[in-house]
Amino acid sequence: MTSTDTARVWGIGVGPGDPELLTLKALRLIHSAEVIAYPAPEQGESFARSIVASHLSGGQREIAIRMALGDGSFPKADIYAAAAAQILDEVAAGRRVAVLCEGDPLFYGSFIYLYERLVERCAVAVVPGVSSLMACAGAAEMPLALRNQSLTVVPGPLPEAELRRRLGQCEAATIVKVGRHLPKVRKILEELGLADRACYVERASLAAQRVMPLGVTGAGEAPYFSMILVRGRA
Amino acid sequence: MTSTDTARVWGIGVGPGDPELLTLKALRLIHSAEVIAYPAPEQGESFARSIVASHLSGGQREIAIRMALGDGSFPKADIYAAAAAQILDEVAAGRRVAVLCEGDPLFYGSFIYLYERLVERCAVAVVPGVSSLMACAGAAEMPLALRNQSLTVVPGPLPEAELRRRLGQCEAATIVKVGRHLPKVRKILEELGLADRACYVERASLAAQRVMPLGVTGAGEAPYFSMILVRGRA
Repeated sequence: MTSTDTARVWGIGVGPGDPELLTLKALRLIHSAEVIAYPAPEQGESFARSIVASHLSGGQREIAIRMALGDGSFPKADIYAAAAAQILDEVAAGRRVAVLCEGDPLFYGSFIYLYERLVERCAVAVVPGVSSLMACAGAAEMPLALRNQSLTVVPGPLPEAELRRRLGQCEAATIVKVGRHLPKVRKILEELGLADRACYVERASLAAQRVMPLGVTGAGEAPYFSMILVRGRA
Repeated sequence: MTSTDTARVWGIGVGPGDPELLTLKALRLIHSAEVIAYPAPEQGESFARSIVASHLSGGQREIAIRMALGDGSFPKADIYAAAAAQILDEVAAGRRVAVLCEGDPLFYGSFIYLYERLVERCAVAVVPGVSSLMACAGAAEMPLALRNQSLTVVPGPLPEAELRRRLGQCEAATIVKVGRHLPKVRKILEELGLADRACYVERASLAAQRVMPLGVTGAGEAPYFSMILVRGRA
Protein backbone atom coordinates (compact mmCIF):
# COMPACT_ATOMS: atom_id res chain seq x y z
CA MET A 1 0.00 0.00 0.00
CA THR A 2 1.44 3.31 -1.10
CA SER A 3 0.46 6.73 0.18
CA THR A 4 -0.55 9.26 -2.42
CA ASP A 5 2.39 11.43 -1.34
CA THR A 6 5.07 8.93 -2.32
CA ALA A 7 3.35 7.38 -5.34
CA ARG A 8 4.72 7.98 -8.82
CA VAL A 9 1.50 6.83 -10.50
CA TRP A 10 -2.01 7.61 -9.27
CA GLY A 11 -5.17 5.89 -10.44
CA ILE A 12 -7.66 8.70 -9.91
CA GLY A 13 -11.43 8.36 -9.91
CA VAL A 14 -12.80 11.45 -11.67
CA GLY A 15 -16.45 10.71 -10.94
CA PRO A 16 -19.46 9.92 -13.12
CA GLY A 17 -19.37 12.91 -15.48
CA ASP A 18 -20.29 16.16 -13.71
CA PRO A 19 -16.94 17.98 -13.42
CA GLU A 20 -18.03 19.25 -9.99
CA LEU A 21 -18.09 15.68 -8.68
CA LEU A 22 -14.29 15.64 -8.80
CA THR A 23 -12.74 15.42 -5.33
CA LEU A 24 -10.34 17.97 -3.90
CA LYS A 25 -7.70 15.24 -3.80
CA ALA A 26 -8.19 14.30 -7.44
CA LEU A 27 -7.88 17.93 -8.44
CA ARG A 28 -4.70 18.50 -6.41
CA LEU A 29 -2.99 15.40 -7.79
CA ILE A 30 -4.03 16.11 -11.38
CA HIS A 31 -2.53 19.57 -11.01
CA SER A 32 0.68 18.19 -9.56
CA ALA A 33 1.24 15.46 -12.16
CA GLU A 34 3.62 16.06 -15.05
CA VAL A 35 1.74 13.51 -17.18
CA ILE A 36 -1.92 12.60 -17.47
CA ALA A 37 -3.08 9.32 -18.98
CA TYR A 38 -6.65 8.28 -19.77
CA PRO A 39 -8.69 5.71 -21.68
CA ALA A 40 -9.97 6.97 -25.00
CA PRO A 41 -11.96 5.51 -27.87
CA GLU A 42 -10.12 4.43 -31.01
CA GLN A 43 -11.06 7.77 -32.51
CA GLY A 44 -12.24 10.92 -30.79
CA GLU A 45 -12.32 12.42 -27.35
CA SER A 46 -11.80 10.70 -23.99
CA PHE A 47 -14.77 10.90 -21.62
CA ALA A 48 -12.49 10.74 -18.57
CA ARG A 49 -10.36 13.58 -19.92
CA SER A 50 -13.44 15.67 -20.75
CA ILE A 51 -14.52 15.53 -17.09
CA VAL A 52 -11.34 17.28 -15.95
CA ALA A 53 -10.64 19.31 -19.10
CA SER A 54 -11.49 22.67 -17.50
CA HIS A 55 -8.79 22.06 -14.88
CA LEU A 56 -5.96 21.21 -17.29
CA SER A 57 -3.30 23.84 -17.86
CA GLY A 58 -2.38 22.58 -21.30
CA GLY A 59 1.25 22.21 -20.24
CA GLN A 60 1.12 18.55 -19.26
CA ARG A 61 2.24 15.57 -21.27
CA GLU A 62 -0.67 13.30 -22.19
CA ILE A 63 -1.04 9.58 -22.87
CA ALA A 64 -4.29 8.52 -24.55
CA ILE A 65 -4.85 4.80 -24.02
CA ARG A 66 -6.88 4.07 -27.14
CA MET A 67 -9.18 1.05 -27.14
CA ALA A 68 -12.60 -0.06 -28.39
CA LEU A 69 -14.93 1.23 -25.65
CA GLY A 70 -18.53 0.81 -24.78
CA ASP A 71 -19.45 -2.11 -26.99
CA GLY A 72 -19.31 -4.69 -24.20
CA SER A 73 -16.08 -6.32 -25.36
CA PHE A 74 -12.91 -6.18 -23.28
CA PRO A 75 -9.67 -4.64 -24.57
CA LYS A 76 -6.81 -6.98 -25.38
CA ALA A 77 -4.07 -7.40 -22.79
CA ASP A 78 -1.44 -5.92 -25.10
CA ILE A 79 -3.16 -2.53 -24.97
CA TYR A 80 -2.57 -2.42 -21.21
CA ALA A 81 0.95 -3.77 -21.57
CA ALA A 82 1.83 -1.03 -24.04
CA ALA A 83 0.23 1.68 -21.87
CA ALA A 84 2.03 0.38 -18.77
CA ALA A 85 5.34 0.50 -20.64
CA GLN A 86 4.66 4.09 -21.71
CA ILE A 87 3.78 5.07 -18.13
CA LEU A 88 6.93 3.39 -16.76
CA ASP A 89 9.03 5.33 -19.28
CA GLU A 90 7.58 8.56 -17.90
CA VAL A 91 8.26 7.46 -14.32
CA ALA A 92 11.83 6.50 -15.24
CA ALA A 93 12.28 10.05 -16.58
CA GLY A 94 11.26 11.43 -13.18
CA ARG A 95 7.70 12.39 -14.04
CA ARG A 96 4.56 11.56 -12.03
CA VAL A 97 1.57 10.18 -13.90
CA ALA A 98 -2.14 10.70 -13.09
CA VAL A 99 -4.26 8.00 -14.70
CA LEU A 100 -7.81 9.34 -15.03
CA CYS A 101 -10.56 6.78 -14.43
CA GLU A 102 -14.28 7.35 -15.05
CA GLY A 103 -16.24 6.94 -11.82
CA ASP A 104 -14.13 4.95 -9.39
CA PRO A 105 -10.94 3.12 -10.49
CA LEU A 106 -11.85 -0.21 -8.88
CA PHE A 107 -15.59 -0.57 -9.57
CA TYR A 108 -15.59 -2.35 -12.93
CA GLY A 109 -12.68 -0.12 -13.88
CA SER A 110 -9.95 -1.08 -16.29
CA PHE A 111 -7.35 0.61 -14.08
CA ILE A 112 -6.75 -2.69 -12.31
CA TYR A 113 -5.10 -4.08 -15.46
CA LEU A 114 -2.64 -1.22 -15.49
CA TYR A 115 -2.17 -1.50 -11.74
CA GLU A 116 -1.17 -5.16 -12.02
CA ARG A 117 1.46 -4.28 -14.60
CA LEU A 118 2.85 -1.31 -12.64
CA VAL A 119 2.76 -2.21 -8.96
CA GLU A 120 5.92 -4.35 -8.93
CA ARG A 121 7.89 -1.70 -10.77
CA CYS A 122 6.89 1.63 -9.25
CA ALA A 123 4.85 3.14 -6.38
CA VAL A 124 1.15 3.26 -7.32
CA ALA A 125 -1.75 4.67 -5.28
CA VAL A 126 -5.49 4.64 -5.85
CA VAL A 127 -7.68 7.70 -5.24
CA PRO A 128 -11.34 6.65 -4.96
CA GLY A 129 -13.97 8.61 -6.82
CA VAL A 130 -17.73 9.09 -6.89
CA SER A 131 -19.03 6.00 -8.65
CA SER A 132 -21.81 5.86 -11.23
CA LEU A 133 -23.55 3.56 -8.74
CA MET A 134 -23.96 6.39 -6.26
CA ALA A 135 -24.62 8.98 -8.99
CA CYS A 136 -27.49 6.89 -10.36
CA ALA A 137 -29.01 6.47 -6.91
CA GLY A 138 -28.74 10.23 -6.36
CA ALA A 139 -30.37 10.93 -9.72
CA ALA A 140 -33.19 8.47 -9.00
CA GLU A 141 -33.45 9.64 -5.36
CA MET A 142 -33.66 5.97 -4.47
CA PRO A 143 -31.61 4.17 -1.79
CA LEU A 144 -29.13 1.58 -3.05
CA ALA A 145 -29.58 -0.36 0.17
CA LEU A 146 -30.94 0.33 3.64
CA ARG A 147 -30.48 -1.06 7.13
CA ASN A 148 -29.51 -4.73 6.80
CA GLN A 149 -30.54 -5.23 3.17
CA SER A 150 -28.21 -7.05 0.81
CA LEU A 151 -27.32 -5.36 -2.48
CA THR A 152 -26.71 -7.43 -5.61
CA VAL A 153 -24.78 -5.75 -8.43
CA VAL A 154 -24.99 -7.61 -11.74
CA PRO A 155 -23.75 -6.70 -15.22
CA GLY A 156 -26.40 -6.66 -17.95
CA PRO A 157 -24.26 -8.66 -20.43
CA LEU A 158 -24.52 -11.83 -18.28
CA PRO A 159 -26.42 -14.75 -19.85
CA GLU A 160 -30.17 -14.64 -19.27
CA ALA A 161 -30.24 -17.69 -17.01
CA GLU A 162 -27.54 -16.33 -14.71
CA LEU A 163 -29.17 -12.90 -14.55
CA ARG A 164 -32.50 -14.51 -13.67
CA ARG A 165 -30.90 -16.68 -11.00
CA ARG A 166 -29.01 -13.80 -9.36
CA LEU A 167 -31.89 -11.34 -9.52
CA GLY A 168 -34.34 -13.99 -8.32
CA GLN A 169 -32.40 -14.17 -5.05
CA CYS A 170 -31.81 -10.44 -4.67
CA GLU A 171 -33.08 -8.01 -2.10
CA ALA A 172 -31.98 -4.61 -3.48
CA ALA A 173 -30.21 -4.80 -6.84
CA THR A 174 -28.38 -2.74 -9.42
CA ILE A 175 -27.91 -3.81 -13.01
CA VAL A 176 -24.86 -2.12 -14.55
CA LYS A 177 -23.74 -1.96 -18.20
CA VAL A 178 -27.36 -2.17 -19.36
CA GLY A 179 -26.91 -0.75 -22.88
CA ARG A 180 -28.16 -3.11 -25.58
CA HIS A 181 -29.23 -5.62 -22.91
CA LEU A 182 -32.16 -3.45 -21.77
CA PRO A 183 -34.91 -5.59 -23.39
CA LYS A 184 -33.49 -8.78 -21.82
CA VAL A 185 -33.07 -7.21 -18.38
CA ARG A 186 -36.53 -5.63 -18.45
CA LYS A 187 -38.14 -8.96 -19.39
CA ILE A 188 -36.39 -10.76 -16.51
CA LEU A 189 -37.36 -8.08 -13.99
CA GLU A 190 -40.98 -8.23 -15.19
CA GLU A 191 -41.04 -12.03 -14.92
CA LEU A 192 -39.62 -11.85 -11.39
CA GLY A 193 -42.18 -9.25 -10.31
CA LEU A 194 -39.44 -6.69 -9.67
CA ALA A 195 -40.31 -4.20 -12.42
CA ASP A 196 -42.50 -2.04 -10.16
CA ARG A 197 -39.52 -1.44 -7.87
CA ALA A 198 -37.14 -0.67 -10.74
CA CYS A 199 -35.87 2.69 -11.97
CA TYR A 200 -33.87 3.33 -15.14
CA VAL A 201 -31.10 5.98 -15.19
CA GLU A 202 -28.90 7.03 -18.08
CA ARG A 203 -25.95 9.45 -18.14
CA ALA A 204 -26.25 10.19 -14.43
CA SER A 205 -24.94 13.61 -13.35
CA LEU A 206 -24.55 14.87 -16.96
CA ALA A 207 -26.79 17.47 -18.60
CA ALA A 208 -28.27 14.67 -20.72
CA GLN A 209 -29.26 12.66 -17.63
CA ARG A 210 -32.59 10.79 -17.89
CA VAL A 211 -34.45 9.01 -15.08
CA MET A 212 -37.67 7.05 -15.47
CA PRO A 213 -39.56 4.08 -14.09
CA LEU A 214 -38.44 0.90 -15.88
CA GLY A 215 -41.96 0.42 -17.22
CA VAL A 216 -41.84 3.51 -19.42
CA THR A 217 -38.50 2.78 -21.11
CA GLY A 218 -38.97 2.05 -24.80
CA ALA A 219 -38.60 -1.37 -26.38
CA GLY A 220 -35.17 -0.54 -27.78
CA GLU A 221 -31.62 -0.50 -26.51
CA ALA A 222 -30.13 1.97 -24.07
CA PRO A 223 -26.86 3.91 -24.13
CA TYR A 224 -23.83 2.19 -22.64
CA PHE A 225 -23.87 4.56 -19.65
CA SER A 226 -27.16 3.32 -18.22
CA MET A 227 -28.16 1.46 -15.10
CA ILE A 228 -31.27 -0.02 -13.50
CA LEU A 229 -31.83 0.22 -9.74
CA VAL A 230 -34.21 -2.17 -7.97
CA ARG A 231 -35.37 -0.94 -4.58
CA GLY A 232 -35.37 -3.46 -1.73
CA ARG A 233 -38.66 -4.15 0.00
CA ALA A 234 -39.31 -1.76 2.89
CA MET B 1 -36.13 15.10 -9.23
CA THR B 2 -34.79 18.47 -8.17
CA SER B 3 -31.67 20.15 -9.48
CA THR B 4 -29.14 21.23 -6.90
CA ASP B 5 -29.67 24.85 -8.00
CA THR B 6 -33.33 25.00 -7.01
CA ALA B 7 -33.21 22.71 -3.97
CA ARG B 8 -33.72 24.13 -0.49
CA VAL B 9 -32.29 21.05 1.20
CA TRP B 10 -29.27 19.08 -0.01
CA GLY B 11 -28.29 15.63 1.16
CA ILE B 12 -24.55 15.82 0.63
CA GLY B 13 -22.13 12.89 0.64
CA VAL B 14 -18.96 14.10 2.38
CA GLY B 15 -16.95 10.97 1.66
CA PRO B 16 -15.39 8.29 3.86
CA GLY B 17 -13.32 10.46 6.19
CA ASP B 18 -10.36 12.06 4.41
CA PRO B 19 -11.40 15.74 4.11
CA GLU B 20 -9.74 15.82 0.67
CA LEU B 21 -12.27 13.27 -0.63
CA LEU B 22 -14.95 15.94 -0.51
CA THR B 23 -16.19 16.88 -3.99
CA LEU B 24 -16.07 20.36 -5.44
CA LYS B 25 -19.87 20.34 -5.54
CA ALA B 26 -20.18 19.36 -1.88
CA LEU B 27 -17.80 22.12 -0.91
CA ARG B 28 -19.63 24.77 -2.95
CA LEU B 29 -23.04 23.82 -1.55
CA ILE B 30 -21.79 23.61 2.04
CA HIS B 31 -20.37 27.12 1.66
CA SER B 32 -23.62 28.42 0.19
CA ALA B 33 -25.95 26.92 2.82
CA GLU B 34 -27.17 29.06 5.69
CA VAL B 35 -27.67 25.95 7.85
CA ILE B 36 -25.75 22.70 8.15
CA ALA B 37 -27.29 19.58 9.68
CA TYR B 38 -25.52 16.32 10.49
CA PRO B 39 -25.92 13.08 12.42
CA ALA B 40 -24.11 13.07 15.75
CA PRO B 41 -23.74 10.65 18.63
CA GLU B 42 -25.80 11.22 21.75
CA GLN B 43 -22.77 12.92 23.24
CA GLY B 44 -19.69 14.26 21.51
CA GLU B 45 -18.57 15.23 18.05
CA SER B 46 -20.17 14.36 14.72
CA PHE B 47 -17.95 12.37 12.35
CA ALA B 48 -19.68 13.87 9.29
CA ARG B 49 -19.13 17.39 10.62
CA SER B 50 -15.48 16.67 11.45
CA ILE B 51 -14.83 15.77 7.79
CA VAL B 52 -15.81 19.25 6.61
CA ALA B 53 -14.85 21.20 9.75
CA SER B 54 -11.87 22.94 8.14
CA HIS B 55 -14.21 24.41 5.51
CA LEU B 56 -16.79 25.85 7.92
CA SER B 57 -16.78 29.60 8.45
CA GLY B 58 -18.31 29.40 11.91
CA GLY B 59 -21.11 31.73 10.85
CA GLN B 60 -23.64 29.04 9.90
CA ARG B 61 -26.55 27.76 11.92
CA GLU B 62 -26.12 24.10 12.87
CA ILE B 63 -28.51 21.24 13.57
CA ALA B 64 -26.99 18.20 15.27
CA ILE B 65 -29.26 15.18 14.77
CA ARG B 66 -28.33 13.24 17.88
CA MET B 67 -28.87 9.48 17.93
CA ALA B 68 -27.26 6.29 19.19
CA LEU B 69 -24.73 5.50 16.43
CA GLY B 70 -22.53 2.62 15.55
CA ASP B 71 -23.93 -0.06 17.80
CA GLY B 72 -25.89 -1.81 15.03
CA SER B 73 -29.30 -0.62 16.20
CA PHE B 74 -31.42 1.73 14.11
CA PRO B 75 -32.59 5.13 15.39
CA LYS B 76 -36.26 5.54 16.20
CA ALA B 77 -38.50 7.17 13.61
CA ASP B 78 -39.26 10.10 15.89
CA ILE B 79 -35.64 11.26 15.75
CA TYR B 80 -35.99 11.72 11.99
CA ALA B 81 -39.44 13.29 12.34
CA ALA B 82 -38.08 15.86 14.79
CA ALA B 83 -35.05 16.60 12.62
CA ALA B 84 -37.23 16.96 9.51
CA ALA B 85 -39.47 19.41 11.37
CA GLN B 86 -36.43 21.45 12.42
CA ILE B 87 -35.12 21.49 8.84
CA LEU B 88 -38.52 22.54 7.48
CA ASP B 89 -38.62 25.43 9.97
CA GLU B 90 -35.29 26.66 8.56
CA VAL B 91 -36.56 26.33 5.01
CA ALA B 92 -39.75 28.20 5.91
CA ALA B 93 -37.53 31.02 7.21
CA GLY B 94 -35.84 31.24 3.82
CA ARG B 95 -32.66 29.39 4.68
CA ARG B 96 -31.07 26.55 2.69
CA VAL B 97 -29.94 23.46 4.58
CA ALA B 98 -26.98 21.19 3.79
CA VAL B 99 -27.41 17.79 5.42
CA LEU B 100 -23.96 16.20 5.76
CA CYS B 101 -23.86 12.44 5.16
CA GLU B 102 -20.85 10.19 5.80
CA GLY B 103 -19.78 8.49 2.58
CA ASP B 104 -22.68 8.57 0.14
CA PRO B 105 -26.21 9.56 1.26
CA LEU B 106 -27.95 6.56 -0.34
CA PHE B 107 -25.58 3.66 0.35
CA TYR B 108 -26.84 2.43 3.74
CA GLY B 109 -27.28 6.08 4.67
CA SER B 110 -29.88 7.36 7.08
CA PHE B 111 -30.50 10.39 4.86
CA ILE B 112 -33.28 8.49 3.10
CA TYR B 113 -35.43 8.71 6.25
CA LEU B 114 -35.11 12.48 6.25
CA TYR B 115 -35.66 12.59 2.50
CA GLU B 116 -38.96 10.73 2.80
CA ARG B 117 -40.17 13.26 5.36
CA LEU B 118 -39.03 16.31 3.39
CA VAL B 119 -39.62 15.58 -0.28
CA GLU B 120 -43.37 16.33 -0.30
CA ARG B 121 -42.86 19.62 1.51
CA CYS B 122 -39.78 21.21 -0.04
CA ALA B 123 -37.28 20.82 -2.90
CA VAL B 124 -34.60 18.27 -1.95
CA ALA B 125 -31.57 17.18 -3.99
CA VAL B 126 -28.97 14.50 -3.41
CA VAL B 127 -25.25 15.07 -4.03
CA PRO B 128 -23.45 11.74 -4.30
CA GLY B 129 -20.19 11.24 -2.44
CA VAL B 130 -17.21 8.90 -2.36
CA SER B 131 -18.49 5.81 -0.59
CA SER B 132 -16.64 3.75 2.00
CA LEU B 133 -17.07 0.87 -0.48
CA MET B 134 -14.77 2.57 -2.97
CA ALA B 135 -12.47 3.92 -0.24
CA CYS B 136 -11.92 0.41 1.14
CA ALA B 137 -11.17 -0.98 -2.31
CA GLY B 138 -8.68 1.84 -2.89
CA ALA B 139 -7.03 1.19 0.47
CA ALA B 140 -6.82 -2.54 -0.22
CA GLU B 141 -5.78 -1.93 -3.86
CA MET B 142 -8.27 -4.67 -4.74
CA PRO B 143 -10.99 -4.50 -7.41
CA LEU B 144 -14.57 -4.52 -6.13
CA ALA B 145 -15.65 -6.24 -9.35
CA LEU B 146 -14.22 -6.74 -12.81
CA ARG B 147 -15.54 -7.43 -16.30
CA ASN B 148 -18.84 -9.30 -15.96
CA GLN B 149 -18.45 -10.36 -12.32
CA SER B 150 -21.39 -9.95 -9.94
CA LEU B 151 -20.80 -8.12 -6.67
CA THR B 152 -22.69 -9.10 -3.52
CA VAL B 153 -22.84 -6.53 -0.72
CA VAL B 154 -24.01 -7.97 2.61
CA PRO B 155 -24.22 -6.42 6.08
CA GLY B 156 -22.33 -8.28 8.80
CA PRO B 157 -25.26 -8.13 11.29
CA LEU B 158 -27.32 -10.55 9.16
CA PRO B 159 -28.07 -13.93 10.75
CA GLU B 160 -25.36 -16.54 10.19
CA ALA B 161 -27.51 -18.75 7.93
CA GLU B 162 -28.44 -15.88 5.64
CA LEU B 163 -24.85 -14.64 5.45
CA ARG B 164 -23.67 -18.16 4.58
CA ARG B 165 -26.34 -18.55 1.91
CA ARG B 166 -25.63 -15.20 0.26
CA LEU B 167 -21.83 -15.51 0.43
CA GLY B 168 -22.02 -19.11 -0.76
CA GLN B 169 -23.52 -17.88 -4.03
CA CYS B 170 -21.27 -14.86 -4.46
CA GLU B 171 -18.65 -14.07 -7.02
CA ALA B 172 -16.99 -10.91 -5.67
CA ALA B 173 -18.37 -9.76 -2.31
CA THR B 174 -18.15 -6.98 0.26
CA ILE B 175 -19.25 -7.38 3.85
CA VAL B 176 -20.18 -4.00 5.37
CA LYS B 177 -20.83 -3.07 9.02
CA VAL B 178 -18.44 -5.79 10.20
CA GLY B 179 -17.76 -4.45 13.72
CA ARG B 180 -18.54 -6.98 16.41
CA HIS B 181 -19.58 -9.51 13.77
CA LEU B 182 -15.98 -10.09 12.63
CA PRO B 183 -15.58 -13.54 14.27
CA LYS B 184 -18.85 -14.77 12.70
CA VAL B 185 -18.03 -13.39 9.25
CA ARG B 186 -14.49 -14.75 9.34
CA LYS B 187 -15.74 -18.23 10.29
CA ILE B 188 -18.25 -18.26 7.42
CA LEU B 189 -15.66 -17.10 4.88
CA GLU B 190 -13.24 -19.77 6.09
CA GLU B 191 -15.90 -22.48 5.84
CA LEU B 192 -16.77 -21.36 2.32
CA GLY B 193 -13.13 -21.38 1.23
CA LEU B 194 -13.23 -17.63 0.56
CA ALA B 195 -10.83 -16.48 3.30
CA ASP B 196 -7.77 -16.56 1.02
CA ARG B 197 -9.42 -14.03 -1.27
CA ALA B 198 -10.54 -11.76 1.58
CA CYS B 199 -9.04 -8.50 2.78
CA TYR B 200 -9.97 -6.60 5.94
CA VAL B 201 -10.03 -2.78 5.97
CA GLU B 202 -10.81 -0.45 8.86
CA ARG B 203 -11.16 3.36 8.89
CA ALA B 204 -10.43 3.63 5.17
CA SER B 205 -8.92 6.96 4.08
CA LEU B 206 -8.28 8.14 7.66
CA ALA B 207 -4.86 8.39 9.30
CA ALA B 208 -5.80 5.38 11.46
CA GLN B 209 -6.54 3.24 8.36
CA ARG B 210 -5.54 -0.43 8.65
CA VAL B 211 -5.52 -3.03 5.85
CA MET B 212 -4.66 -6.70 6.27
CA PRO B 213 -5.46 -10.15 4.90
CA LEU B 214 -8.49 -11.56 6.71
CA GLY B 215 -6.37 -14.40 8.06
CA VAL B 216 -4.24 -12.14 10.25
CA THR B 217 -7.09 -10.26 11.94
CA GLY B 218 -7.29 -11.07 15.63
CA ALA B 219 -9.98 -13.21 17.21
CA GLY B 220 -11.79 -10.19 18.60
CA GLU B 221 -14.25 -7.63 17.34
CA ALA B 222 -13.55 -4.84 14.87
CA PRO B 223 -14.45 -1.15 14.92
CA TYR B 224 -17.80 -0.19 13.42
CA PHE B 225 -16.09 1.40 10.42
CA SER B 226 -14.65 -1.81 9.01
CA MET B 227 -15.30 -3.83 5.90
CA ILE B 228 -14.20 -7.10 4.32
CA LEU B 229 -13.64 -7.36 0.56
CA VAL B 230 -13.67 -10.74 -1.19
CA ARG B 231 -12.00 -10.73 -4.59
CA GLY B 232 -13.81 -12.52 -7.42
CA ARG B 233 -12.01 -15.37 -9.14
CA ALA B 234 -9.83 -14.19 -12.03
